[in-house]
Amino acid sequence: MSFEDYFNTIVDNVNKRIEKYIKGNVKELYEASYYLFKAGGKRLRPLILVASSDLLGGERERAYLAGAAVEVLHTFTLIHDDIMDEDTTRRGMPTVHVKWGIPMAILAGDLLHAKAFEILNDSFKGTSNNKISKAFEIFTKAIIIISEGQALDMQFEDRSIVSEEEYLDMITRKTAMLFSASAALGGLIATENEKEVEALAQYGLNLGIAFQIIDDILGLVADEKELGKPVYSDIREGKKTILVIKAIKEAKEDEKEKILKTLGNKNATKDELSAVAEIIKKYSLEYAYTKAEEYMKKAIDSLESISWKNNEAGKALKYLAEFTVKRRK
Amino acid sequence: MSFEDYFNTIVDNVNKRIEKYIKGNVKELYEASYYLFKAGGKRLRPLILVASSDLLGGERERAYLAGAAVEVLHTFTLIHDDIMDEDTTRRGMPTVHVKWGIPMAILAGDLLHAKAFEILNDSFKGTSNNKISKAFEIFTKAIIIISEGQALDMQFEDRSIVSEEEYLDMITRKTAMLFSASAALGGLIATENEKEVEALAQYGLNLGIAFQIIDDILGLVADEKELGKPVYSDIREGKKTILVIKAIKEAKEDEKEKILKTLGNKNATKDELSAVAEIIKKYSLEYAYTKAEEYMKKAIDSLESISWKNNEAGKALKYLAEFTVKRRK
Repeated sequence: MSFEDYFNTIVDNVNKRIEKYIKGNVKELYEASYYLFKAGGKRLRPLILVASSDLLGGERERAYLAGAAVEVLHTFTLIHDDIMDEDTTRRGMPTVHVKWGIPMAILAGDLLHAKAFEILNDSFKGTSNNKISKAFEIFTKAIIIISEGQALDMQFEDRSIVSEEEYLDMITRKTAMLFSASAALGGLIATENEKEVEALAQYGLNLGIAFQIIDDILGLVADEKELGKPVYSDIREGKKTILVIKAIKEAKEDEKEKILKTLGNKNATKDELSAVAEIIKKYSLEYAYTKAEEYMKKAIDSLESISWKNNEAGKALKYLAEFTVKRRK
Repeated sequence: MSFEDYFNTIVDNVNKRIEKYIKGNVKELYEASYYLFKAGGKRLRPLILVASSDLLGGERERAYLAGAAVEVLHTFTLIHDDIMDEDTTRRGMPTVHVKWGIPMAILAGDLLHAKAFEILNDSFKGTSNNKISKAFEIFTKAIIIISEGQALDMQFEDRSIVSEEEYLDMITRKTAMLFSASAALGGLIATENEKEVEALAQYGLNLGIAFQIIDDILGLVADEKELGKPVYSDIREGKKTILVIKAIKEAKEDEKEKILKTLGNKNATKDELSAVAEIIKKYSLEYAYTKAEEYMKKAIDSLESISWKNNEAGKALKYLAEFTVKRRK
């Protein structure tokens, strides 16, 4: 089976389960809740989850459900983050709060948050009590840490200087935790061996850090249409990405001044944003790519510490780590 | 032991567990999340949960934790509802989004939503796999239905005519479900007997409907200081309470016109609101009290179908149903 077939089978099955669960008779609420799933998305977290389960011989039906749970959870965070960050475009479409208003968007996120737990519960139903408790522990811990990461991200917008260490801590919480939880939950479906589950958690965590660094890079270099959201929005919002942090540290005084003047300025013109982006790229692009590759390699190293029961799944997980760094959107 | 002692012991123990769990090192986020717990609140849902558990001989430590879980969940819904309804005062204090801004209030609600699941997981840890799955099923179902109820409540604001049946369906979802889930979870801690758990669920459901009818009455007749929020805000927001529905149905043409003109008018003066409140009270107050008492009696009837293992708990549950209707805030 080719990677493409392997991944497509997973995505189709996960999507079917999402569609089945995100249905109800309060029309507007369910439309707003289901909207972003129709708009695309890579389903990276379910792919990691199902392949992690496959790697250790887990049941596919349980893995599809747990995959749907993490994707639904991820989508809830996107809807709420877009309100908080005042983002108006996502996946090439207006964000949920732009289309339905902030109250309905808050509610749609809340519904998906609860639905994610409903689906996870069904995924682990009938397994041992320890496994069910562990699954909910991984899931709840992830959401708590993600919320903390989002709070830090917002706090950083109001600070001019943030260290690389603080940035890494923040993206570990905000982004990498859910990748880590996805891989760990996949492992947990197959085994209660803590070492193997922990190795998968490490794989997901390092892949997640690489993913966010690349996301921050793409916010500066990607094609706007391909990305599905405005480039430079990170600069306008004053996001302290690894590229911004490195550039502020390395740039000459006049360049540094330009960066700090434009960063977080909601009225900055496209030309100003573009000029600042060029400065940042000059000092940071290579550095950020190198960092992302380091984390990607750590992720792959983690996989090597596990005895694979399914070679195809192991190769798929390696491919996903590499894809994370190579992707252009 | 007096009722007061019985209830105080529960409230103190539940509060201690809430305090323990709602702690973390991202200062502003945890301050915003913990704020409403300090502002008071009756802890009615934990009281129902722990007494329901007592009634069938459940373990107190598990019940305290599950009680904390439902109170934390309830508080998440309050924070998000206040944003959606643009309410600025709660429990005599500025609402969370007024104090910390909408983004932080959304995030605090999300954190509490996840924390509620974390606490519930700890409450049922080590029980049977069926029990854990059932507990999460009750909990997730409640949140999903609560979200649907809030969506209906918002939709009703934009409609001039809503039937009493639609109102009862809406408050069953928005308010009564969590009372029902609280009683059922309490029962589940003690037993897997489905009939007993279902009887408790019915007790909570009917108590919850009575609770919301009284809440709607208090929004018209309560002392503003005692209530902790502005009276008449329901009229200003255009809420279709049972009192409004009944009054629109029964009032004379000119009175009906006055009601419809003022209902949902954000610029209505205090005098206009007060005049409309008087009309509504004239036609609806007795009717609404009678309805609330009917549901209160149904709740108490449900209790009688269970064989009590703890007389004090049974009496406490009866008292809580009666208190729900008698309360003045």
